[in-house]
Amino acid sequence: MIRRYSFGTPLPTDAVVCALPAEKGDVPYFTTLRENERVSFTLSLSPEDILFGLGESVRGVNKRGFRFRSWNSDIPSHTENTESLYASHNFLVFFGPSRLFGIYLDDPGAVIWDLGYTRSDTAVITSENGNFDFYLIEEDSLSGLVRTFRGLTGQSYLPPRWAFGYIQSRWGYASEDEIRTVAEEHRSRHIPLDAVCMDIDYMVGFKNFTWKPEAFPDLKRFSTELKQDHLRLVPIIDAGIPAEEGFAQYEEGKAEGVFCKKEDGSEFVASVWPGWCVFPDFLQEKARTWFGDQYRPLLEAGIEGFWNDMNEPALFFTEEGVSEAFARAESLRGSHVDYESMWQLKGSFNGIGNNMNDYRRFFHRIGDASVRHDKVHNLYGAHMTRASADAFRRYDPDRRFLLFSRSSFIGAHRNGGVWQGDNFSWWSHLKMALQMLPGLNMCGFLYSGCDLGGFGSNVTEDLLTRFLQLGVFTPLMRNHSALHTREQEIYRFSTWEMMRDTVTVRYALLPFLYSEFMKAALTDGMYFRPLAFDYPEDTRAVRVEDQLMLGEGCMIAPVLEQNAVGRYVYLPEDMLMIRFRSASDYDLVPLDKGDHRIDLKLNEFPLFVKKNHLVALCAGGESSETLDDRALTVIGRIDRETVYDYYRDDGFSPRPDLQQHLFRISIKPETVCTSTAGVAISKLLI
Amino acid sequence: MIRRYSFGTPLPTDAVVCALPAEKGDVPYFTTLRENERVSFTLSLSPEDILFGLGESVRGVNKRGFRFRSWNSDIPSHTENTESLYASHNFLVFFGPSRLFGIYLDDPGAVIWDLGYTRSDTAVITSENGNFDFYLIEEDSLSGLVRTFRGLTGQSYLPPRWAFGYIQSRWGYASEDEIRTVAEEHRSRHIPLDAVCMDIDYMVGFKNFTWKPEAFPDLKRFSTELKQDHLRLVPIIDAGIPAEEGFAQYEEGKAEGVFCKKEDGSEFVASVWPGWCVFPDFLQEKARTWFGDQYRPLLEAGIEGFWNDMNEPALFFTEEGVSEAFARAESLRGSHVDYESMWQLKGSFNGIGNNMNDYRRFFHRIGDASVRHDKVHNLYGAHMTRASADAFRRYDPDRRFLLFSRSSFIGAHRNGGVWQGDNFSWWSHLKMALQMLPGLNMCGFLYSGCDLGGFGSNVTEDLLTRFLQLGVFTPLMRNHSALHTREQEIYRFSTWEMMRDTVTVRYALLPFLYSEFMKAALTDGMYFRPLAFDYPEDTRAVRVEDQLMLGEGCMIAPVLEQNAVGRYVYLPEDMLMIRFRSASDYDLVPLDKGDHRIDLKLNEFPLFVKKNHLVALCAGGESSETLDDRALTVIGRIDRETVYDYYRDDGFSPRPDLQQHLFRISIKPETVCTSTAGVAISKLLI
Repeated sequence: MIRRYSFGTPLPTDAVVCALPAEKGDVPYFTTLRENERVSFTLSLSPEDILFGLGESVRGVNKRGFRFRSWNSDIPSHTENTESLYASHNFLVFFGPSRLFGIYLDDPGAVIWDLGYTRSDTAVITSENGNFDFYLIEEDSLSGLVRTFRGLTGQSYLPPRWAFGYIQSRWGYASEDEIRTVAEEHRSRHIPLDAVCMDIDYMVGFKNFTWKPEAFPDLKRFSTELKQDHLRLVPIIDAGIPAEEGFAQYEEGKAEGVFCKKEDGSEFVASVWPGWCVFPDFLQEKARTWFGDQYRPLLEAGIEGFWNDMNEPALFFTEEGVSEAFARAESLRGSHVDYESMWQLKGSFNGIGNNMNDYRRFFHRIGDASVRHDKVHNLYGAHMTRASADAFRRYDPDRRFLLFSRSSFIGAHRNGGVWQGDNFSWWSHLKMALQMLPGLNMCGFLYSGCDLGGFGSNVTEDLLTRFLQLGVFTPLMRNHSALHTREQEIYRFSTWEMMRDTVTVRYALLPFLYSEFMKAALTDGMYFRPLAFDYPEDTRAVRVEDQLMLGEGCMIAPVLEQNAVGRYVYLPEDMLMIRFRSASDYDLVPLDKGDHRIDLKLNEFPLFVKKNHLVALCAGGESSETLDDRALTVIGRIDRETVYDYYRDDGFSPRPDLQQHLFRISIKPETVCTSTAGVAISKLLI
Repeated sequence: MIRRYSFGTPLPTDAVVCALPAEKGDVPYFTTLRENERVSFTLSLSPEDILFGLGESVRGVNKRGFRFRSWNSDIPSHTENTESLYASHNFLVFFGPSRLFGIYLDDPGAVIWDLGYTRSDTAVITSENGNFDFYLIEEDSLSGLVRTFRGLTGQSYLPPRWAFGYIQSRWGYASEDEIRTVAEEHRSRHIPLDAVCMDIDYMVGFKNFTWKPEAFPDLKRFSTELKQDHLRLVPIIDAGIPAEEGFAQYEEGKAEGVFCKKEDGSEFVASVWPGWCVFPDFLQEKARTWFGDQYRPLLEAGIEGFWNDMNEPALFFTEEGVSEAFARAESLRGSHVDYESMWQLKGSFNGIGNNMNDYRRFFHRIGDASVRHDKVHNLYGAHMTRASADAFRRYDPDRRFLLFSRSSFIGAHRNGGVWQGDNFSWWSHLKMALQMLPGLNMCGFLYSGCDLGGFGSNVTEDLLTRFLQLGVFTPLMRNHSALHTREQEIYRFSTWEMMRDTVTVRYALLPFLYSEFMKAALTDGMYFRPLAFDYPEDTRAVRVEDQLMLGEGCMIAPVLEQNAVGRYVYLPEDMLMIRFRSASDYDLVPLDKGDHRIDLKLNEFPLFVKKNHLVALCAGGESSETLDDRALTVIGRIDRETVYDYYRDDGFSPRPDLQQHLFRISIKPETVCTSTAGVAISKLLI
């Protein structure tokens, strides 16, 4: 059941797809307080209460004990006390012995979530602007509650099947030749690969929708050449458009009036990668259509996937901001510079990026109104994604495109996936990547993953290996790294064969993981879940922070610690452990409910399967297109006939019918062709 | 066995206390490479090799898989990829199935430790300057090896017994009244307390050895008043001396020629807290004596403990550095500022602190030579500590003083303790604090601890509680926080009673922990050890990263994760768990060798005791001086008569004789007065 409560004058956000009448009276459970524009909701927490949700955010699966701020931020060097990441996902579930409900604040501005931070026994949620819809969702179970919420917000984005392949990316690839080398190094070493990302260096002066003619003399020919090798290109698109006189896009967009304006009606200009840029007003349909149309040359060149970046929007600085910084610095010059003024000096220039003053300098048109950006800041990236997805649907309505974005808001989950933003080559960010996944899934962002290996700083062989072992299971499996960091392609490392073997597991599992993903997406379910969703009565399971349920019957528990050759795992019920080393080399170990210490050498990682559930492996391969997904090895720890409804489709049709694509696999306990008692393996051709 | 190999022209560092003849030929095990000034040592690592040591440094107990740089740095916002912290402790042990040896690089300049970072199977250790002694230490056991190393470097500092009490600190306490309030809030709520730190605000304009006359009108009277309440004051002393004409210390030190000079012979001046400062050349005995004498007014006011800070030395900036930064900024003004120049702009002022150019601007006198600071950078803090400790010995040779420093080098462990530097209110820093302790102990820094609750950023109730639960066992148990962060004294929180109960456990254990500490210090042993030291043959134990051996027979395993109400613990042998809630409320749970999942609510924390070892608790109290340490409850899981040699002394005499102060406690299995089978409790009066 969903109830909507309306506060102030909510602006359209495109987050929900159902219009509900507003309830009268106060929101139940909470004490509501209005102070000037701010509206806050206070609730007492019992020691047993657990909070799930908030999508892309730091800290644990249980969000309790921290203060988050919904404010889309370009903040690569985030640590555990970073309040805002690249996205704002205002859905939170309160789960305890005597309570189960979810809340969604459909608020495009800043929202503060003090979840047992100031006082461990109190949650206070505050809308800074006070114009929003508050949805209260109640169901009998966590899964049911999330499904109801997802019904409210619409079906998750469906990527094409090739988007489940391994993707290699690096900030710095600048030419056909460089990308060709990356492709060849993978193919010659039999490291599976489906796509290569093109970061900003493919463009002419970082200008959107251009590509360097000398480096990519014939992009269509090149993309065709790669496709023949079952590889795809995935270029980046940024939010800003160069404010360069004579640059066609700028002139055209200016003529159409699609860029954000300042209060005086002039265009808002800020520096990002190409230099001075204007910013499409994605909140206007006209601007979205115009922007979407710009993708056409790339689509015509055969591109089938994109990543949208810099769309918080990130702002390096404005002219006003730089002038103010220089003035501040100047005022301190020559004086006896003390500690305070040193901090001011440093701060003067440090603060010029993504500055709140700049976010107050420009406006959006919403209907007839002009709305200052900071009031709707968190919508920007989501509406850029919307512009892109709409364009792809217009250009080729019969094909799914790959699209993932850095910034997002609930609603964008219908149009694209997300990566988890710019992370670091840190073990703590590996753990954070895992812990962020269930929240993202709750909010509908099923197609997601982190920059494997870490974007910033230098990765080590062991860390990249453990990142890849998590990545085997994340729908988006992309190795990505930043300019000036250690080169991070698998083949750069002395232990590349171990890493290749890890990726082969992804390809053996790819049809199965795709099946699990599609079934979750088409039923408003979750691909990754906290254990609490399956075992709400198990007081141990509900607090597990480093294991996730995957699909219908699986659980993952990767190694997240440097130098570890094993880990503890809690099994809420009897399971089968598949300890993978490669697609063809794995152990099958039945383990009973309870705590286990599992040996996991650097090249080993486990997948757990509930009793009387099945996993299907194919023989693997080097690209998603060349996999034979009909020859399956079906594995289960079963004591009765067990079925698995295996989803298969063509991998690209946009509106698949679930029932039509399900193929029922059934095996019986007597199908035992292994020495491990109770484990059935069946070889099937379907 | 120790062998010394000499490279270049080593400078005196005061690190070792034994003169060994230099070996001829190459260092065994390593491949030595000389490149210009640099000397590097390369060694292959097997997958099983584990590396212990490096004292104050980030990452795990096992230092493998990262690159460290010995370079004392003022770096509060450190993360897992921070190469340098506040101290340089160049002692590392290689421990594997087929190797056991330690190396110590007595090198006062930068040393790079690539420990399986560039290649996971290779360690490369590089001295940047090439003037150092390389000690190779070999013994049959880890403990023996460390003891031999500690024999080379001399006996650890002995703090007074009151330094094992709980210490409250905060950057911001600025007056008698404020400190009195802190004291009263603790006393009135029966939160035990032994000392209050005075951070920089007690001084007049942050000038060393001064105090604000209006805020502390009679420091001696105030310190006497507090001592009557069994409380002591612990003021901070910084490294820099204000370069202020007419300021007595400056004039005097200038006349004596004790400050560091630039190449042209003029004094080196940089800004730190008081503004422009000069820096005593602590490498000269004359300067140390002069600086040490400055403590006299504070000693005469009854002060018995100090913390030395800012002694990397931290430099906010120099006039030259600021000019260069302004010039860089100016050169970018007006130009079309792009991304690169924005980074340069930010960097120009960001880089002005602790700048390498500044460290090259000044010199030390060593004998007749003038040595540029960067060649001996890592000695500075250690020699400040030496100056202080020598002064205390001169002033009152019959008393131990409390002294702990931010920056250090091996050798300083004979003169003082260390705190682990400026950390954050992060769960990851709680874990890092634990993991740093065994390395510090290996290097002789037994008196150590972190800023409990975290120095920077805002603590939460649960995080402070878990920090305190670690702090119960660290010799230095100090709650410290920074200006502008959440107030962090226990009494500020709604859950203060839970925190108070935690501190009561410290006081119940204080005589026992003091006994364990003194026995370790007086025998060149370790108070905290990796489990590998006790169970080198146990392949599980050697890799445990979140438990530590404590003293002769104990092990700690604190909860390090937010929202956790339990944790896994590995017991390498049968043990007794004491699950503490307060000094008088605890469970006794015998647990057998193996893996265990332990329930530990927020107010609970365990101490494990090996079978046939004993722990002694006193009744506790509110200060170390008012504890009755003769009435003991002795607890053990024993199956034979078991003895504990209990160390007791007056708590302040400087050269205690170990044997003279040992009191043998003996209990027998039949002394069972508990319902828990196999656990003996004996009430003793000694």
